[in-house]
Amino acid sequence: MKNKIKKVNAAILIIGNEILSGRTQDKNIAFIANWLNSKCGISVKEVRIIPDEEKIIAKNTLVLSKKFNYVFTTGGIGPTHDDITAQSVSKAFNVKYEYHKEAYNILEKYYGKKKFNDGRKKMAKMPRGAKLIYNPSSAAPGFIIKNVISLPGVPLILNSMIENCKKYLIKGSKTHSKTLNLYTVESNIAKQLGLIQKKYKKSVDIGSYPFFRLGKIGVSIVTRSNSISKLTSVNKHLIKLVKFKKIKILHI
Amino acid sequence: MKNKIKKVNAAILIIGNEILSGRTQDKNIAFIANWLNSKCGISVKEVRIIPDEEKIIAKNTLVLSKKFNYVFTTGGIGPTHDDITAQSVSKAFNVKYEYHKEAYNILEKYYGKKKFNDGRKKMAKMPRGAKLIYNPSSAAPGFIIKNVISLPGVPLILNSMIENCKKYLIKGSKTHSKTLNLYTVESNIAKQLGLIQKKYKKSVDIGSYPFFRLGKIGVSIVTRSNSISKLTSVNKHLIKLVKFKKIKILHI
Repeated sequence: MKNKIKKVNAAILIIGNEILSGRTQDKNIAFIANWLNSKCGISVKEVRIIPDEEKIIAKNTLVLSKKFNYVFTTGGIGPTHDDITAQSVSKAFNVKYEYHKEAYNILEKYYGKKKFNDGRKKMAKMPRGAKLIYNPSSAAPGFIIKNVISLPGVPLILNSMIENCKKYLIKGSKTHSKTLNLYTVESNIAKQLGLIQKKYKKSVDIGSYPFFRLGKIGVSIVTRSNSISKLTSVNKHLIKLVKFKKIKILHI
Repeated sequence: MKNKIKKVNAAILIIGNEILSGRTQDKNIAFIANWLNSKCGISVKEVRIIPDEEKIIAKNTLVLSKKFNYVFTTGGIGPTHDDITAQSVSKAFNVKYEYHKEAYNILEKYYGKKKFNDGRKKMAKMPRGAKLIYNPSSAAPGFIIKNVISLPGVPLILNSMIENCKKYLIKGSKTHSKTLNLYTVESNIAKQLGLIQKKYKKSVDIGSYPFFRLGKIGVSIVTRSNSISKLTSVNKHLIKLVKFKKIKILHI
């Protein structure tokens, strides 16, 4: 039982018109996905980016929370009118949207009683029953309710909070990966790659990604698996193929 | 009728384990969204990122194609085993997955008869009835079937093909936008921003995004609308607010 593979998955729900419009380049997806896999053995299986609209947020939250072990939402938990994540998640789970005592106290202490205005108070409102994800950067906490964790959209702040999510997550088996960068084109190795993938269909995932580097084209072969031994076997096959085809490896 | 606002929308479906795993930072979403808005007046309303699995690709393609005017897929149209977009889109629309004559001829000419191997031939297979999106970078075409346009995942190649999508798209009204960068914090202006948004609820979308620049924190107020005059009105309100609150504007 010790080595049994435990698959735990997650979805990410990016809430924000600024990402959909193309104005802002998202940085949270790659960060959360990498952190979840390397620190918790959790694989991200779907991402959705949606506008700041209550009904749409509520619906997607509910759909994804039923489909995956965890849902991470980013964005929409600040003090302005377009920050509606907490109220939308409340709607998704049909619970009250109300002041969270601890969050209220944290924020009141942070801003001081006099400067604790309505906008700032809004950041203490959460779905009833939510637990806090503490924020070491700018005080305003995120929260978890059921299997949904809501974090802010600003990458620097999100990054500073991510470790505080850990205690709420069940750990899975880490996905290990190896990358082989080859000076060749995909169609030169496509057939053999397909055969190797077929052989390890259930245990190793082989991806092939063209790259351009220093004016040369090449292919990165990325292998991913929960089993290190299977990963090693596949990479032995790949090295054989590379030698047979006399392909140059790019070491970086 | 001349000034009637015509809303045309789109979804983007990013197909690729490499984006979900966090290994690769997506660059196509912002590029496509910006291009669609500025060149075609089309707004992206939803993005999904999904794994390289036929059933999942087919299902999401179908769902999004019913929900939006257009769907742009990226990734999975190369020669390797993990390139399964064309076969999955065929499944979505229940049409044959077969050689596209023109695509076959383009690729055969590009590689030469002798080097036109199975992997390369695979790139000529498409859903029956698809029309080609020409590729000036590396020959292998994308395609459009019904309202779904399939493009490659490599940003350089995708970027070189995007203009070739234009002739298939109905144009909508462009969304205009203005950005006001302020040296303040969101909670200082949240209340008044909310009031302005309420007044222009149906015509202007006001977004508020914190930023960190040169060691200082600030807020970008982004206003977006199909109507330039409404956008101007809202920005007059904003300037009034900024003057009243004695907030410094960052000109960049």
